[in-house]
Amino acid sequence: MNPSNVAVRSYAAYDSKSELKAFQFERRNPGAFDVQIDILYCGVCHSDLHFIKGDWGKITYPLVPGHEIVGKVEQVGTEVKKFKVGDVVGVGCLVDSCRTCPSCKEGLEQYCETGMTMTYGSAASNEPTGITHGGYSTKIVVDENYLLRIPSTIPLKNAAPLLCAGITTYSPLRYWKVGSGDRIGVVGLGGLGHMAVKLARAMGAEVTVFSTSENKRNDAMKLGAHHFVVSNDRVEMEKRQTSLTLIIDTVSASHDYNLYLGLLKREGTMVLLGLPEPTVVAAVPLVFKRRSLAGSLIGGIRETQEMLDFCAKHEIAADVEVIPMQEINKAYERMLKGDVHYRFVIDLQSLK
Amino acid sequence: MNPSNVAVRSYAAYDSKSELKAFQFERRNPGAFDVQIDILYCGVCHSDLHFIKGDWGKITYPLVPGHEIVGKVEQVGTEVKKFKVGDVVGVGCLVDSCRTCPSCKEGLEQYCETGMTMTYGSAASNEPTGITHGGYSTKIVVDENYLLRIPSTIPLKNAAPLLCAGITTYSPLRYWKVGSGDRIGVVGLGGLGHMAVKLARAMGAEVTVFSTSENKRNDAMKLGAHHFVVSNDRVEMEKRQTSLTLIIDTVSASHDYNLYLGLLKREGTMVLLGLPEPTVVAAVPLVFKRRSLAGSLIGGIRETQEMLDFCAKHEIAADVEVIPMQEINKAYERMLKGDVHYRFVIDLQSLK
Repeated sequence: MNPSNVAVRSYAAYDSKSELKAFQFERRNPGAFDVQIDILYCGVCHSDLHFIKGDWGKITYPLVPGHEIVGKVEQVGTEVKKFKVGDVVGVGCLVDSCRTCPSCKEGLEQYCETGMTMTYGSAASNEPTGITHGGYSTKIVVDENYLLRIPSTIPLKNAAPLLCAGITTYSPLRYWKVGSGDRIGVVGLGGLGHMAVKLARAMGAEVTVFSTSENKRNDAMKLGAHHFVVSNDRVEMEKRQTSLTLIIDTVSASHDYNLYLGLLKREGTMVLLGLPEPTVVAAVPLVFKRRSLAGSLIGGIRETQEMLDFCAKHEIAADVEVIPMQEINKAYERMLKGDVHYRFVIDLQSLK
Repeated sequence: MNPSNVAVRSYAAYDSKSELKAFQFERRNPGAFDVQIDILYCGVCHSDLHFIKGDWGKITYPLVPGHEIVGKVEQVGTEVKKFKVGDVVGVGCLVDSCRTCPSCKEGLEQYCETGMTMTYGSAASNEPTGITHGGYSTKIVVDENYLLRIPSTIPLKNAAPLLCAGITTYSPLRYWKVGSGDRIGVVGLGGLGHMAVKLARAMGAEVTVFSTSENKRNDAMKLGAHHFVVSNDRVEMEKRQTSLTLIIDTVSASHDYNLYLGLLKREGTMVLLGLPEPTVVAAVPLVFKRRSLAGSLIGGIRETQEMLDFCAKHEIAADVEVIPMQEINKAYERMLKGDVHYRFVIDLQSLK
């Protein structure tokens, strides 16, 4: 035990099946380039659940999830230049990367060629537990180069989900150059989908939401969508063939991509943000209109800061429901039923 | 019967199963903007076989296939400006389109929004038979705007396959901006694949051919490939992960795309040129490197002319085996076995 380590209270998964339970552990003694953060809020992302259940590969337990973190700087290392005590900062899905590969040098740390260090669940020799632990916890220690500055105009609880749901939808909208005059489809209206609607609209696009359930219509329109289509309504789907420039597909459950590919104009792209099971794709809609099926993974640190500043400028943030840490297991149950508008955010005061 | 119609000898499919047989029919009386062509050579494309078997939808028999046509102008309409009697011209996969939709106006007639008129098998009210018939025939009548000029330096028999195999591979190489320093994969070494190798190499790319059969190695290298990989050689495939900027997939039989997606660098694209059965695609390789799976369809008239001029400049043409019309059924059998280097071309002298 190193007395300089940082004692942390948290909720962790102890195995793939049980409920999350309280867990105390230590984070590393902050180094010269590290910032120690008192966590205020942490968003609850669907991938937290996939991860701790082992859906995406074997993991080490106990594991503390959470990668939509907002907090206040309470200590900085001697070499830290960008942040000072009292600053309000964010931590997203990654806390380190190799810093030397072409992707890292281009500011695309999420595609780091030796693999980014994720905010939770990555091996980390500098951590007393040997792995990184996420934001369902009272404190976190992060290198200043992987921290974001939260603009003062965004309410903190609404800012937290921007660190994953926000950047994951912002990055493809930017990469595929969405702007005024573009007609964008958003498939699925959950945490990611509701941000995609707000961001695409703020970029000047005409937004159509596709959902399996009619009862999301009012919400979609309130969030700023111009149109809403129930995806099994053949007549409505037929009417919209060859009408969209980009489709942001936020659904991680298995679903039929081919239902949507025909909605794209010539050279249009459908971007997967989730990780559904391998899915059957027809060649015809790709070949006959030079369309693409692509994927996109969160975003780099520089682009995440750009997204936060864009959100501040356009007065955009996530719609959230704040819960105490102790209600996380109930929140997971509701999330699995799609009963969340649109992100649970944990108030870490509940653990202090 | 209009005595001004053009009498044509040909070989046609009379149903989906029988061998091709001789067929006499009439083409339209050439109009003011039409060019009447004496056909010299016609390439044999794998899609001819798919088409007449009804693999791609119901068709009207008898049907004359063939869309890699080279011939000599023997008559021009009163308004024809671009061609004169004696010119050597080409006809590819399409002979008309709406000319008014955005795709047509951009010179991308292959993506015509009301559907191009294909060289064979399309409804055509101006044709005595009511449908278009292709180049397994002695003469054809085509609007001058859908004709290509064959550069004089390309031997005619070797030029014919450029009209489909050439443009189908050239167009995606251009659209995805292949140039010096790019590392390109070519999947399949048939009619399309061998042109992809030659064209990509002439554009300055480093070319790797992927094939299921080791016995194509020498041919691939002779055609200009820099590397050859047997696609079920796990060690070689593993070594080449994340190494390619673009993959040109020429295979129309069912195959596993996922085997190749991992070979692409970040933001790389795999382009399907064939129409395999719907195939299972994993989201992970797309999402984790922002890769795309796309499609591409032949090319427009302007780009086809550009491709022919590019081939002349770089002294590229198809490798062919010339056959008389009467051997078409044997040629189909050999084509199905992959026994062709790399395109059969019919010498129409055999029908005259």
